[in-house]
Amino acid sequence: MNIRMHLYVLGKVMLIEGILMLIPTVCALFYGETNQLIVYFACFAIYALIGLCSSVIKPEQNKLYLKDGCIVTAESWLLLSLCGCIPFMVTGEIPRFTDAVFETVSGFTTTGSSILTNVEAMSHASLIWRSLTHWIGGMGVLVFLLAVVPMSGGSNMNLLIAESPGPSVGKLAPKVRSTAKTLYLIYLGLTLLEILVLVIAGMPMFDSLCSAFGTAGTGGFGIRNDSFTSYAPHIQWIVAIFMIVFGVNFNFYYLLTAKQPGKAFKMEEVRGYFLVILAAVAIICINTFSITGNLGTTMRNSFFQVATIITTTGFANDDFDKWPTLSRLILVALMFIGACAGSTGGGIKISRFQIRLKTIAREIDRYIHPKNVKKIQMDGKPLDPDIIRSVTVYFMVFLIVFSSSVAIVSIEGHDLVTSFTAVAATINNIGPGLSMVGPTQNYAFLSNLSKWVLIFDMLAGRLELFPLIIFLYPGTYKTAFQSKMPRIR
Amino acid sequence: MNIRMHLYVLGKVMLIEGILMLIPTVCALFYGETNQLIVYFACFAIYALIGLCSSVIKPEQNKLYLKDGCIVTAESWLLLSLCGCIPFMVTGEIPRFTDAVFETVSGFTTTGSSILTNVEAMSHASLIWRSLTHWIGGMGVLVFLLAVVPMSGGSNMNLLIAESPGPSVGKLAPKVRSTAKTLYLIYLGLTLLEILVLVIAGMPMFDSLCSAFGTAGTGGFGIRNDSFTSYAPHIQWIVAIFMIVFGVNFNFYYLLTAKQPGKAFKMEEVRGYFLVILAAVAIICINTFSITGNLGTTMRNSFFQVATIITTTGFANDDFDKWPTLSRLILVALMFIGACAGSTGGGIKISRFQIRLKTIAREIDRYIHPKNVKKIQMDGKPLDPDIIRSVTVYFMVFLIVFSSSVAIVSIEGHDLVTSFTAVAATINNIGPGLSMVGPTQNYAFLSNLSKWVLIFDMLAGRLELFPLIIFLYPGTYKTAFQSKMPRIR
Repeated sequence: MNIRMHLYVLGKVMLIEGILMLIPTVCALFYGETNQLIVYFACFAIYALIGLCSSVIKPEQNKLYLKDGCIVTAESWLLLSLCGCIPFMVTGEIPRFTDAVFETVSGFTTTGSSILTNVEAMSHASLIWRSLTHWIGGMGVLVFLLAVVPMSGGSNMNLLIAESPGPSVGKLAPKVRSTAKTLYLIYLGLTLLEILVLVIAGMPMFDSLCSAFGTAGTGGFGIRNDSFTSYAPHIQWIVAIFMIVFGVNFNFYYLLTAKQPGKAFKMEEVRGYFLVILAAVAIICINTFSITGNLGTTMRNSFFQVATIITTTGFANDDFDKWPTLSRLILVALMFIGACAGSTGGGIKISRFQIRLKTIAREIDRYIHPKNVKKIQMDGKPLDPDIIRSVTVYFMVFLIVFSSSVAIVSIEGHDLVTSFTAVAATINNIGPGLSMVGPTQNYAFLSNLSKWVLIFDMLAGRLELFPLIIFLYPGTYKTAFQSKMPRIR
Repeated sequence: MNIRMHLYVLGKVMLIEGILMLIPTVCALFYGETNQLIVYFACFAIYALIGLCSSVIKPEQNKLYLKDGCIVTAESWLLLSLCGCIPFMVTGEIPRFTDAVFETVSGFTTTGSSILTNVEAMSHASLIWRSLTHWIGGMGVLVFLLAVVPMSGGSNMNLLIAESPGPSVGKLAPKVRSTAKTLYLIYLGLTLLEILVLVIAGMPMFDSLCSAFGTAGTGGFGIRNDSFTSYAPHIQWIVAIFMIVFGVNFNFYYLLTAKQPGKAFKMEEVRGYFLVILAAVAIICINTFSITGNLGTTMRNSFFQVATIITTTGFANDDFDKWPTLSRLILVALMFIGACAGSTGGGIKISRFQIRLKTIAREIDRYIHPKNVKKIQMDGKPLDPDIIRSVTVYFMVFLIVFSSSVAIVSIEGHDLVTSFTAVAATINNIGPGLSMVGPTQNYAFLSNLSKWVLIFDMLAGRLELFPLIIFLYPGTYKTAFQSKMPRIR
C-alpha cells in the first residue's frame, strides 16, 4: 500500500470540495443568509487548508494498482460525503448525523432520495450545495482530478475504471488525461446549455441552476416539495429531454465532437437506450391514458417519468405510485436497466444487458449448431472475454447485495413493495420508489439501520459494487503480493 | 429431424401414461365411482392403443442430437399434459379446457398451484391421478423411458440432459440406462418408505398415497382444502422431513448405496442445502415466535414452511402470508434458490448459486491478485468452463422469462405482490405465492391469458428453460446443419 499516494489523492479531493464550497458561500451572500455564509465559508477555508497541506508533497512513487485504485476511490467518496454533510449539520438544517450523511451520500451518488419532509424550508445556500453534490458526483470527482493532475499512466486508468460507470470505460481516447478533460468539457457544456435553455424558458435563475445540476448528474433532488409537478409543462418537457441527453453514453458526444457522426449513431448501446425509452413510453401511454383522458398530459407524464427513471434521475411530475400495476412494473424494470454506460446515470446499464442478451443468443446457438459458435460482438468489434466475464459476475454480485439489503430493510416490517423499491431506488441511484417511499413520500421515517444500509447501497451502486467490496474485503489488506498493472474489466 | 424417432418416443410416452391411468381406474373401482371408472379405463385403453401403434416400429436410426433431445422432451411434456387433462374434463370435475390444462401441467411439473376452489369435492380417482402426476413428473417420464428402453448412447444422454433438473446431471454413473434405473429405484424406494411411515403414523391409506406422491415429486397438491393444517403435528413433521429428503441431490443416495458415505457427506451442494435450511428456519423462528408464543408450534411451522418452499413442494400448514415481512421475504428468496440439482425439486438450484458465488470469489481475487487466479472447483474437482458459462446464461434467461411473465400477468391489474409471486411460485414449481395467490387462496380467479403464461412458466421451470426455448425458437427448424453428439451443460 502506498500511503503517501493515498494521502495525496485524498488531499486533492478535499481541496476540490473546499473550493466548491465557495458556490454556496456566494449564494448565501447573495440571499443574505448570514448563518449559512459563515458555515460554508468556514468549510471552504478549513477543507482547502487541510487539502493543501496533505497534498503539498507529491509522492515519488505515484503508481496505483487496480486494487489501490478501488481503495482510493472508496476512501475519496467516503471523505467527500463526510465533509459534505457537515454544513447541513452545523447550520442546523439537518441536525441528525445519520440523516445528514444520508442526504449527502444521496447527493454525491446522484440518487436523490431525501430525508427532508419540507424541502422549501431549506436555505438557498444549502439547496444549491445539495444540488451541486449531484453535479460533482455525476461525472465523478476523481475523473475531475485526473483531468487536472498528472499521474503515471496506469494509475489514472485504474482510478477511472473504479469511478466511472459501465463496463467499457477508458476506451474513449488513448490518453486518460485527455479523456477525462473531454468528458468534463462535454459535461460542463451540456450543463451550461440546459441552464441557458431553462432561463430562456422562463425558469428563475436559482431554480434553473439547481435543476440543471440535478439533471446533469442524473441526481433528482427537487427544490420544491412536489418536485416538478408545479412547473409549467414546457419546462417539464425541457428537463425530460435533458435527462435523456445526460443518460446517453458520453462516447456518443465525443464521437460527434470528433466528427464521426456515422460511428456515433451506430453505437448499439445508444440505439438500445432509445429503443427501450420508446417502448416504455408507448406502453405506459396506453396503460395510463384512462387516468387523465388527455393525450398531451398522458404523453408528457409518461415521457417525463420514463426519462427520470431510466436515467435514474428521480424527479417527479406525477404520483406514479397511483399508476396501474403494469406501468409501475415497467418503471421498476427501468430502475434496474438504467442508463448507458459512460453516462452520469446509474442502474445496471443498457450495455450490460446487451452483452448478457448476446451471451444468451450464443448459448441457444450452441444447442443448435454446437460446432459453429460465433464470437460475441459489440459495435462491430469482438468483445473481450474479460468484459463478458466481469459483466456476468456483476449481475450476481448485484443480486446478492440487493437481496441482502432488502432482507435487512424488511426487518422494520414495512410492506414488501416498500422494502423492495427502497433498495431498488437507492442501489440504482434513482431516488423515489413505490408505496411508502413513493414520489410524494420521503425516506425520513426509516430506522437508522435501514438508512445506513441504503447509504451503503447508494455508494455501492454509484461505484458499481467492486471498489466498495474490495475496500471492505479483509483479504485486500492481507496480501503482500502485487503484480504489474492489470487491465481487468 | 428424425420424425420416426420422435413418433417412437412420443408413442412410448403415451403408452406409459395409458398404463398409469390404471391406478385411478382401480381407485374408482375401489370407491365405487362409476363415472370415473369408465373415463379412466377408456383413457387407459385409448392411450395404450395409440401409444403401442405409434411405437411398434423401432426406427433404424435411433440417434437423437442435443437439439432433438430438447424438442422431443418438450413434445413429450406437452403430450403428457394434454392427454393427462382429458379425464378431468370428461368427468366434468374441471370442465374448462384452460383450467384442466393448468391443473395437469401444475401436476406434472410438480408445481402444485391449483385452480380448484374446493378440492374435497373431487372424486378419489381424480385426486389420486392428480397426485400421481406429481410423482411421474418429479423424476420425469423420459428418465423412466430411458430406464426401460434401449437407445444408442448419446440419445439417452441428450434426453436425460434435457429433462433432468440441475447443471451437472449424467455424471452419476457411466452408463445412462443404469443411471436412470438407479434413480428410479431410489425414488420408488423412498416413496414406499414414506407411505409406510405415514400409514404407521396413523394417516389413512388414501391420504398417505396422495401425500407421498406429492412429497416425492415435490409437487404440493393437497387433498384437503386447508392442505396440511388439519393433520396431526407428528404427521406434519414426517412430511416435512420427507420433503427435505426428496430435495437432496440423488447423487447423495447413489453414493450411499454405492457405499461411499465419505464422498456423499462431502458433497458441497448437500451441505449448502442443509446450511440454507438451518439458517432460514432459525431466522423465521425468531421472527415469527411472537405470533403463537409457543416454541413447539413455531418450530414446526417454520420448519414445515421452509421445507415446503425450498424443496418447491408447496404444501401449507400455516398461512405464511400473515407472517412478518422478513419471514415472507426469506420464503420468497427460498422460492428462487430451490432444492439441489438432481433432486425432484425445482427452483434455480443450490449448485447454480454455489457456482455463481465461486465465480464472484474468483472475480474479487482477480482484483487483488491479478496474476494468480485459481480455477473454480466443486467437490474437489475443477469445474468444466462449459458448465460455468451455461450457469451464468441460465440466470439471465431465467430473469428475462420471469420479468416478461410478471409484466403480462400484471396487465390484469392485481397488486404487485400477487403478480410477482404468482410467477415466482409457478416458474419455480412451488405452488402457493403471497397475497391473492397465497397459501389459503388459489389460481382460479386469474384470466385465461395469465393462466397460459403461468402454464408456460411451469413447463419452462420444470424443463429448466432451454428445451422449451429451443422447441419454440424458429431458428431451430431452419437449420440443416447437424454435428456429432455434443456435451453441452
